[in-house]
Amino acid sequence: MKLPAIQYATSLSAHQSSLRRSCSSPLHSSFQRLLSTTSRSQLRDVFPAKETPLIQTTPPAWPHHGYTMEEMKLVAPAHRPPRTLGDHAAWKIVRFARFCMDKATGMDRAQKGDKKHPTTSIAAEKPLTEAQWLIRFVFLESIAGVPGMVGGMLRHLGSLRRLKRDNGWIETLLEESYNERMHLLTFMKMCEPGWFMKTMIIISQGIFFNGLFIAYVVSPKIVHRFVGYLEEEAVHTYTRAIAEIEDGHLPKWNSPAFKVPDIAVQYWEMPEGNRTMKDLIMYIRADEAIHRGVNHTLGNLNQQEDPNPFVSNFKDGEVPKPALKGVGYERSEVI
Amino acid sequence: MKLPAIQYATSLSAHQSSLRRSCSSPLHSSFQRLLSTTSRSQLRDVFPAKETPLIQTTPPAWPHHGYTMEEMKLVAPAHRPPRTLGDHAAWKIVRFARFCMDKATGMDRAQKGDKKHPTTSIAAEKPLTEAQWLIRFVFLESIAGVPGMVGGMLRHLGSLRRLKRDNGWIETLLEESYNERMHLLTFMKMCEPGWFMKTMIIISQGIFFNGLFIAYVVSPKIVHRFVGYLEEEAVHTYTRAIAEIEDGHLPKWNSPAFKVPDIAVQYWEMPEGNRTMKDLIMYIRADEAIHRGVNHTLGNLNQQEDPNPFVSNFKDGEVPKPALKGVGYERSEVI
Ligand SMILES: [Fe+2]
Ligand SMILES: [Fe+2]
Ligand SMILES: [Fe+2]
Ligand SMILES: [Fe+2]
Repeated sequence: MKLPAIQYATSLSAHQSSLRRSCSSPLHSSFQRLLSTTSRSQLRDVFPAKETPLIQTTPPAWPHHGYTMEEMKLVAPAHRPPRTLGDHAAWKIVRFARFCMDKATGMDRAQKGDKKHPTTSIAAEKPLTEAQWLIRFVFLESIAGVPGMVGGMLRHLGSLRRLKRDNGWIETLLEESYNERMHLLTFMKMCEPGWFMKTMIIISQGIFFNGLFIAYVVSPKIVHRFVGYLEEEAVHTYTRAIAEIEDGHLPKWNSPAFKVPDIAVQYWEMPEGNRTMKDLIMYIRADEAIHRGVNHTLGNLNQQEDPNPFVSNFKDGEVPKPALKGVGYERSEVI
Repeated sequence: MKLPAIQYATSLSAHQSSLRRSCSSPLHSSFQRLLSTTSRSQLRDVFPAKETPLIQTTPPAWPHHGYTMEEMKLVAPAHRPPRTLGDHAAWKIVRFARFCMDKATGMDRAQKGDKKHPTTSIAAEKPLTEAQWLIRFVFLESIAGVPGMVGGMLRHLGSLRRLKRDNGWIETLLEESYNERMHLLTFMKMCEPGWFMKTMIIISQGIFFNGLFIAYVVSPKIVHRFVGYLEEEAVHTYTRAIAEIEDGHLPKWNSPAFKVPDIAVQYWEMPEGNRTMKDLIMYIRADEAIHRGVNHTLGNLNQQEDPNPFVSNFKDGEVPKPALKGVGYERSEVI
């Protein structure tokens, strides 16, 4: 059953608001507190009620097709070894960005993944707290919505300018950016970053948008590879979070009082009985796995001529499954 | 019945290719010829075949819901008198752009609409030729796909940056830009501009994209009003074209040999028996009328807080009809 969208905009129940404060609870250093201070009054204006005298609801734009539990359990961390010079550049930038991110959010040495084996690093000595996870998710998702929009926009303008059809790429890229924005809005229902983190988000977007804009004009291939590697990290991160929930390190999220936000229940059409935080992260991780497979594949294609295999009809009737193809499809497999 | 998309990519039949040359036939001045010279070899690469060893078709992204003949006949020219300073600025810029456009395409004085009554100008002493119309359509549609993308992108980035939901605007703006691109690609199946016009298109996009980007950051309200006025012009232009077809001034398009491109038949789901050039322009005009009503309405709303009424569910169950509301809805009518 679809929930009316307006429900997300209504009052926070008692336990929800205490959970939302979870990313504003005092953390282990005063620097961390800076990242995440949230006052009650700020919380209120994140999702102002959008019911108007005439309008009841505004449903989401791109409906999600949902996943079964079985599909989501098949998602696994993967790494595509860099081959070309562009691949290596993309991989190094992602690793560097991750290093900065860990520093900026004041991660303990023991909390970091195995830096010697970054491609398989889904565990660490010391778990993160719920608050640390949420801050991380919010920051990453606020960034993750940028590349799809940049790619979609530049391909749209290119199609208009060159008077040539695009063959399906724009759609997938825009939908990816929409999906990432839904991840962000979901986490925003659970926690709100403080002014310091908000400033970081604005600055990061400025750098990231302009950098990606130029990079996509110069080499869309490298950008798709770069996003493929970013999404590898995302799958790693969410896999680690799932493991820490399973291991009982994040009691707030295992508490029966915890409720997944309505925005998420509606968007992923989460079935009743499968609405824990772990379930939510399973859905999000499956999305990231799709982006990983899609972008690694797009990075293998001829950017000007090849149709987007993920919205095409194949002669043999088969449909590519990017979520399960962590390293992406080779061009010969889909074109 | 849906036609497989690949059909548009296959060979041009004899009459189609002669019609495509129509925008390259010698016009009344050598300057005009400059605008529109098309060599056979250029024609070929506009829509390279996208059937690959594995892929059969790549269907369009946003399916069109189609229109009935009755709906399309209700579309009429309209003008929203400017009220605020911003409105006046938007209207003047549109009029100036139109003046430049007429000059650049070498329009006869007698071919111009009634400049004293620009808001009702849908006729002129002397008709345009098919070639003149096509060049005009291609140029205008290559520009028309820009504002929706700029608005959609900036609102998307704003939502990520401010950590706030968007309430449905992005979707409508992106779909508008997609729809305009489909107009362009449809006309590209009938004619290809020469190198001079292609250069003009590239330069215009550069100016238009950057100008709109800045303008949308400064005042999205004025930009939506501006697009509303642009779309008024579009409805005027297509209404005049329809009248000239009806009056028999454009014999090539009334010839039984003329065939609407498959891309258009598929996109608008044009019923058999209603696939003349006049029908095609009726469909396109109806699209423009929607953009007109939508943008004039969005220009009346609170840009940060109001939901997009065109994707919302109303309490009284009514659905706004932007195509028939040439001056847009007032805020109180839809919020
Ligand atoms: Fe995400
Ligand atoms: Fe992602
Ligand atoms: Fe158009
Ligand atoms: Fe238009």
